[in-house]
Amino acid sequence: MADPTEPDLPDNWGQWGADDELGTLNLITDDVRAKAAAEVRTGRWASLAQPVVPNPMISSPFAPTTVDVSPVQQMMSQTGVGVAADLMLVTNHHAKSTHIDALAHWSTDGEVYPGRPRDQAVTPAGVTYASTAAFAAGIVTRGILLDLAVEGALPPAYAVTSHDFEQAEKRRGVEVSSGDALVVRLGWTSTNVPGTPSPGISIDAVSWMHRRGVAVFAGDRGDAHPALDPDGPSPLHGVALGRMAMPLIDAAELDDLAALCAQLKRYSFLLTVAPPRIHSLTGVPVNPIATF
Amino acid sequence: MADPTEPDLPDNWGQWGADDELGTLNLITDDVRAKAAAEVRTGRWASLAQPVVPNPMISSPFAPTTVDVSPVQQMMSQTGVGVAADLMLVTNHHAKSTHIDALAHWSTDGEVYPGRPRDQAVTPAGVTYASTAAFAAGIVTRGILLDLAVEGALPPAYAVTSHDFEQAEKRRGVEVSSGDALVVRLGWTSTNVPGTPSPGISIDAVSWMHRRGVAVFAGDRGDAHPALDPDGPSPLHGVALGRMAMPLIDAAELDDLAALCAQLKRYSFLLTVAPPRIHSLTGVPVNPIATF
Amino acid sequence: MADPTEPDLPDNWGQWGADDELGTLNLITDDVRAKAAAEVRTGRWASLAQPVVPNPMISSPFAPTTVDVSPVQQMMSQTGVGVAADLMLVTNHHAKSTHIDALAHWSTDGEVYPGRPRDQAVTPAGVTYASTAAFAAGIVTRGILLDLAVEGALPPAYAVTSHDFEQAEKRRGVEVSSGDALVVRLGWTSTNVPGTPSPGISIDAVSWMHRRGVAVFAGDRGDAHPALDPDGPSPLHGVALGRMAMPLIDAAELDDLAALCAQLKRYSFLLTVAPPRIHSLTGVPVNPIATF
Amino acid sequence: MADPTEPDLPDNWGQWGADDELGTLNLITDDVRAKAAAEVRTGRWASLAQPVVPNPMISSPFAPTTVDVSPVQQMMSQTGVGVAADLMLVTNHHAKSTHIDALAHWSTDGEVYPGRPRDQAVTPAGVTYASTAAFAAGIVTRGILLDLAVEGALPPAYAVTSHDFEQAEKRRGVEVSSGDALVVRLGWTSTNVPGTPSPGISIDAVSWMHRRGVAVFAGDRGDAHPALDPDGPSPLHGVALGRMAMPLIDAAELDDLAALCAQLKRYSFLLTVAPPRIHSLTGVPVNPIATF
Repeated sequence: MADPTEPDLPDNWGQWGADDELGTLNLITDDVRAKAAAEVRTGRWASLAQPVVPNPMISSPFAPTTVDVSPVQQMMSQTGVGVAADLMLVTNHHAKSTHIDALAHWSTDGEVYPGRPRDQAVTPAGVTYASTAAFAAGIVTRGILLDLAVEGALPPAYAVTSHDFEQAEKRRGVEVSSGDALVVRLGWTSTNVPGTPSPGISIDAVSWMHRRGVAVFAGDRGDAHPALDPDGPSPLHGVALGRMAMPLIDAAELDDLAALCAQLKRYSFLLTVAPPRIHSLTGVPVNPIATF
Repeated sequence: MADPTEPDLPDNWGQWGADDELGTLNLITDDVRAKAAAEVRTGRWASLAQPVVPNPMISSPFAPTTVDVSPVQQMMSQTGVGVAADLMLVTNHHAKSTHIDALAHWSTDGEVYPGRPRDQAVTPAGVTYASTAAFAAGIVTRGILLDLAVEGALPPAYAVTSHDFEQAEKRRGVEVSSGDALVVRLGWTSTNVPGTPSPGISIDAVSWMHRRGVAVFAGDRGDAHPALDPDGPSPLHGVALGRMAMPLIDAAELDDLAALCAQLKRYSFLLTVAPPRIHSLTGVPVNPIATF
Repeated sequence: MADPTEPDLPDNWGQWGADDELGTLNLITDDVRAKAAAEVRTGRWASLAQPVVPNPMISSPFAPTTVDVSPVQQMMSQTGVGVAADLMLVTNHHAKSTHIDALAHWSTDGEVYPGRPRDQAVTPAGVTYASTAAFAAGIVTRGILLDLAVEGALPPAYAVTSHDFEQAEKRRGVEVSSGDALVVRLGWTSTNVPGTPSPGISIDAVSWMHRRGVAVFAGDRGDAHPALDPDGPSPLHGVALGRMAMPLIDAAELDDLAALCAQLKRYSFLLTVAPPRIHSLTGVPVNPIATF
Repeated sequence: MADPTEPDLPDNWGQWGADDELGTLNLITDDVRAKAAAEVRTGRWASLAQPVVPNPMISSPFAPTTVDVSPVQQMMSQTGVGVAADLMLVTNHHAKSTHIDALAHWSTDGEVYPGRPRDQAVTPAGVTYASTAAFAAGIVTRGILLDLAVEGALPPAYAVTSHDFEQAEKRRGVEVSSGDALVVRLGWTSTNVPGTPSPGISIDAVSWMHRRGVAVFAGDRGDAHPALDPDGPSPLHGVALGRMAMPLIDAAELDDLAALCAQLKRYSFLLTVAPPRIHSLTGVPVNPIATF
């Protein structure tokens, strides 16, 4: 348990042993995968990722003087032949990039799940424990969309609760169960708007995910900004990622998915999460695909 | 037609109009997707990507003096808090990185498919036409593995032909048809071994792909190095990518897939190709997932 | 001669042999250095470089959404100890960075001074001929400031001529001679202001530099933008750098120097040009120091 | 005083006030500069910097698989025109790069000279206090070379003392005095050789620098590796930089300077230290120039 003085926070430290790096991905069993497979009937699909337009890195006196920040900077290479090639510089955690957080992204009282000293897990040369290597070969499971923004974006500073989740389940006739990926749409972009408090997931909602056995979370918005409770841990990053060891897909773009679900009248699907297979990172851009 | 003086080379310039950026992805119809969906029964899956271990960028007098080159360099950030974060610098076309080539990666006689002047499509500020944007929302289709290395790696300098493909089809009872992703295993890694000529795909094999209507190609090895025919265009890059407008997945790692196919005794599957959703690039790392 | 059809343009191709990489730096003889040394009497000095504030590269959802472009991006490293360290990404040619152009930065009719095919000199792996290596050990010579902006910035689109130079010489009692560094102040910053044509150096002025034997040029503004003569080569880059093989210090900041000269009533000095000693580049930031 | 429990370590905290960012650069007075100016008679000069050959960043399947690490990585840009340009990625503290350490590079008991909390001075967005901005406009002073390797490199693990310095002074008839730059040659390169302990500067030698009023230190080798005293602070970084607030030029290359001094039979000179004028860094490459 990460902190014995906060006994009510959901916690998976020790649940899968002292050397586990998968966290809640352990919940994705053969049965869950079979259920996920059964969702695939048409081959229709949607991407849950925001499009990213890179910023060019140009070595020129005529470069622009102000740029919109992008998670990706692009450098076109001189190749000397007709082939075109480039390099890119990627900010792995960025509000304008759909990315997945490795468990080592967070630490609690100086320790990374399930109790490794942070200094051993997160070194200047890269992450040695609970890095993106844990899901580099891909995550395949059943996904369920709970769309809380059917009638428009949630109001500013709204705290999403388990009650909201259960109402959405009833509305669509779905039920989140152990090993599922939970996809939640609040109707907000992931970019903070100065002066406007965003809605966000509450501790109550995170505890519900724990009880249901959610394996992965994806949201257009996740933790509220500013925090719903400035004195407590952030629900998704501090509790779900840090204590429950549940990988988070931050800054998803869910409009396409919501539209396809509405068109097909189905809110469950096969979710394929396959970031570039790069080890040792704290997080990495990902393009999750929902297939129906 | 890219070049009227080479009338026998397969070619799709003009096939889908003057403004097309999808090339052979146009062949993935609803019927193809339905066939792909029908392959998914168990939820078992394999990644077709090589694992990448980044090189750390360390600002230190005690850094190593020699490093193995990696497609990814990682910089751990000072965050000032317990959260760990990083940046990465990515070489988009690299023999140690499974990546997908955008159509604008190649040009023929100064033009990018289907006839755009290269200087307009490939600019110092990024790719404006036929970039990775074309598949940034993901590609979902049926995949078929033709494993030519069941009895061991192909011999050096071996030229893979349509005959090899048809024998492999018969051996496994599969048939590549229009809109499929063709996955070919030669049993070689993508890294060149100095002094050893690798096997590779021939023009004959690429012409067969054209006749069959392959939508995407993935191989552990693709074009031979050195070239099978030094005087002709490279079969996959020069003809398939450049003329047939067929996106290529270079430097795949197919051992896991081959083992899973052998275990399940099935060589067709749903293939999900979902690179980070980044526009404007000439290519980008990808982690293709085969789901059964 | 770079182009026999433009016989009137000053040219040094062949002047110092077919293998020369120094260009007009050959003019800095022992006599010139002795004259330069004689200028140093007090140890007062001025920097001719613009200050650069780097842009931080932060991996954070709370990063700013718009930034002023900087020639330098800075990444603070996680070091794991009390020592602070960083990396920087530098745009070598940038209007907000005082930098020195290597001769290979420019080519004329596909050739780099004094006649090397550009493809041999400028390769995807770096510059093999006439790179920054030519001045990486430093340039030490006499410098002379011709301040054309004593009574305010020159008017927009003004073409600086040899007459302006000679008037400035007379005003200050100095005379530019062979091997000197010529420092010219127009009173404009190096950043283009959209809609406002800047003044710039004319071909006539560059020809005068050739006759006088200027070894290095530094200016707050150099070539006008837009070009004074859109149909001809740019005077400083196309003619002085490309044909006369005279290294250029672009985007200098000369207000401090002008103020110190006015205070000391001296317009000649020792100029020390010592970029980071990095070979193979097309250009590199530099902080030239005038010592009196 | 940085730490009242170590009263014998030399210390300048508080010496120039609570807001000082210059440290021992305050010792470079008009008198010192006049003395420095008097050293310049011939215009002969030497660079104190190691040459750096950048590593190319190439986006190619044919890139080398192993590289020697370089402090600089170079990316040649596609420019679309005949002009050649590039970007570079620089490791600011590197054994193969002559660089100058800003005072904020080091902290003592969580504080940066002269008592700023490290977290305020060194932020994820860059250094806000005692950064490279302190010497970005250049340092001009008298330099003195004490060449301890006239008869060959010092032995492994040798501890350089004040006695060595005073012997070298007598040998050459020079005397280090307040405001001088001290240049010390040990005859070792800055790159660690695994298994071979290097010589280094002792606390005694650093205390001598304090008594003499040295303003800047440059050495081919500085602190020994492994440490001379593993239990104490490192003499140059921990004491001279951290407590005495004396900027350090690490990893200088002094063979050219030693040869020129021997030829001219002079061991004092004007030293011009002019790194690229970039603020906010913890350190930056520099090409110090000694002029005679």
